[in-house]
Amino acid sequence: MANPVLVEVTRGCITESFHRAGFALVDGAGEVIESRGDILRPVFPRSAIKVFQGIPLIETGAADAYGLSDPELALACASHSGEDGHVRLAAEMLAKAGLDATVLECGCHWPFDAPVARDLARRGETPTALHNNCSGKHAGFLCTAVHMGEETRGYVGLGHPVQQRAKAVIEDLTGFDLNSDVCGTDGCAIPTFAAPLKSFAHGFGKLASGEGVAPERAAAGRRLIAACMAHPWEMSGTGRACEALMQAAPGQVFAKTGAEGVFCGALPGLGLGFALKIDDGTTRASETLAAAVIAVALRSHDPDLAARFDALANKTLRNWEKTEVGAVRAAIR
Amino acid sequence: MANPVLVEVTRGCITESFHRAGFALVDGAGEVIESRGDILRPVFPRSAIKVFQGIPLIETGAADAYGLSDPELALACASHSGEDGHVRLAAEMLAKAGLDATVLECGCHWPFDAPVARDLARRGETPTALHNNCSGKHAGFLCTAVHMGEETRGYVGLGHPVQQRAKAVIEDLTGFDLNSDVCGTDGCAIPTFAAPLKSFAHGFGKLASGEGVAPERAAAGRRLIAACMAHPWEMSGTGRACEALMQAAPGQVFAKTGAEGVFCGALPGLGLGFALKIDDGTTRASETLAAAVIAVALRSHDPDLAARFDALANKTLRNWEKTEVGAVRAAIR
Repeated sequence: MANPVLVEVTRGCITESFHRAGFALVDGAGEVIESRGDILRPVFPRSAIKVFQGIPLIETGAADAYGLSDPELALACASHSGEDGHVRLAAEMLAKAGLDATVLECGCHWPFDAPVARDLARRGETPTALHNNCSGKHAGFLCTAVHMGEETRGYVGLGHPVQQRAKAVIEDLTGFDLNSDVCGTDGCAIPTFAAPLKSFAHGFGKLASGEGVAPERAAAGRRLIAACMAHPWEMSGTGRACEALMQAAPGQVFAKTGAEGVFCGALPGLGLGFALKIDDGTTRASETLAAAVIAVALRSHDPDLAARFDALANKTLRNWEKTEVGAVRAAIR
Repeated sequence: MANPVLVEVTRGCITESFHRAGFALVDGAGEVIESRGDILRPVFPRSAIKVFQGIPLIETGAADAYGLSDPELALACASHSGEDGHVRLAAEMLAKAGLDATVLECGCHWPFDAPVARDLARRGETPTALHNNCSGKHAGFLCTAVHMGEETRGYVGLGHPVQQRAKAVIEDLTGFDLNSDVCGTDGCAIPTFAAPLKSFAHGFGKLASGEGVAPERAAAGRRLIAACMAHPWEMSGTGRACEALMQAAPGQVFAKTGAEGVFCGALPGLGLGFALKIDDGTTRASETLAAAVIAVALRSHDPDLAARFDALANKTLRNWEKTEVGAVRAAIR
């Protein structure tokens, strides 16, 4: 059965396009507080679970051994915009482990954010691996490998201890068996494992509540989540959706985008986690639905704050002459 | 009922995302040769019917009065990439009518094509209205207005004769009543009218076959279509899908993209037209499905040529390190 339409794009008096999706809002015990669509089909979480992948950076002691700052921990969980500050911070993380950008295996790409890419071009520069939106996560992987005395070369491979540790954390938090049938290769060359939305939401619910997870692991996850909430720019970039969502409720909402229309998050104060995926993989829809799901979570606890997220879930569309022509809006019925 | 999934995006052994859509392949008599999904719900055609909107440029005699070349006629039907040659050609069209870029009411935007936008930034430039992907169409509108002795100011408004002539052509070709209930504002500020996919496909079928339309109108439409097929770069840009589709079968296939996942086209030799829309408005899917629909049209007439379009309907996805990670592929069942 098709997932329901949860985001509509209007123009004039017509719904021009629409996005089908599923989402799960789950507590630490695994109880589904609210959901729509199929939340049991395995989907790739892509970058939306960088916090899970970052936990070994804390658990191995690498973060403390290298004295990583909170902005650096946020960058380790980031899909950043490749702005100058992001690039500098990633280089500093690598330097703390005695490394430089040549060891990165994430590949190069122009920053996704068009104004940032144009600024780089205007200065006559081209992107390096440090501009890759995942360079902070990779710097974290590499810090961990060096701290553990492991070979850095090939750290993106499934068999490398870096990826095996990340996989073990994801399995523990989701409670889902990550076998080779559900493995793909992510944009930045590391393995990505598919699991149900319900399982990813439960994983974030565990970290948010501390339930059903070892206290040290919960503490590691909450330390990363706190770093991201305190440093949303380091975790995303200027004007990005993750930044806007976390700035709308400082310290109360963690939200992280992933490729192909995935979004995950946590509300530590409520002990809840969420995960969503737009069937068609569109970011405009995942960002809009993330705001709406956060509003659902907050509704009965803080209606005023919920209203702030309702507003973020209804964006005006304008043409090149700035005339209002329609809207992108969540429609959770 | 939900439209069927017609485009799949795979990663590893999983279908990561999918796109639902409808399409209609129709002849000049209005007979549906092949279709999937709902082809009767009105949708905005956006830029996919620029050929319809360009017909008054021929019919009023403006194109001949100003001696517009075939590349200029292709640009009048273009969603171009804002490359230097496009910008120069649009300025030349305006100059032929004694105008310059200050009369354009389409607004400015950075070229959608990222490398083109970065080239502009690298030279320290910013986009003008001539870089707007619709500047050629607007130049055509303005040539027509000047030739007819009309005020150029406000030519984008629904009440202006330029838009009334375009609307009359669209109504004639689609056979659909374009009332205010189906009107929205397009990105470039002109009105856009919703009609069923079947009607748009029929309109292109009429132009392709010459059936059911006044001979002068059919001739005007075919002149524009021929100009586009002969000058696909002027009608799109370097590496764009419209260019690739038309270059795959020179003189046999006309194909034109539109915003929000619309694609229209014609096969003049077969007397067929097609129209499609991806429900979620995604361009990667509309480009892929367009290739597949053209393959369907060609299958029994020219299997080898059809195979060329089947190949265009199955694109390998690679990560930043150029490793194959999946595919975007049409799945018409």
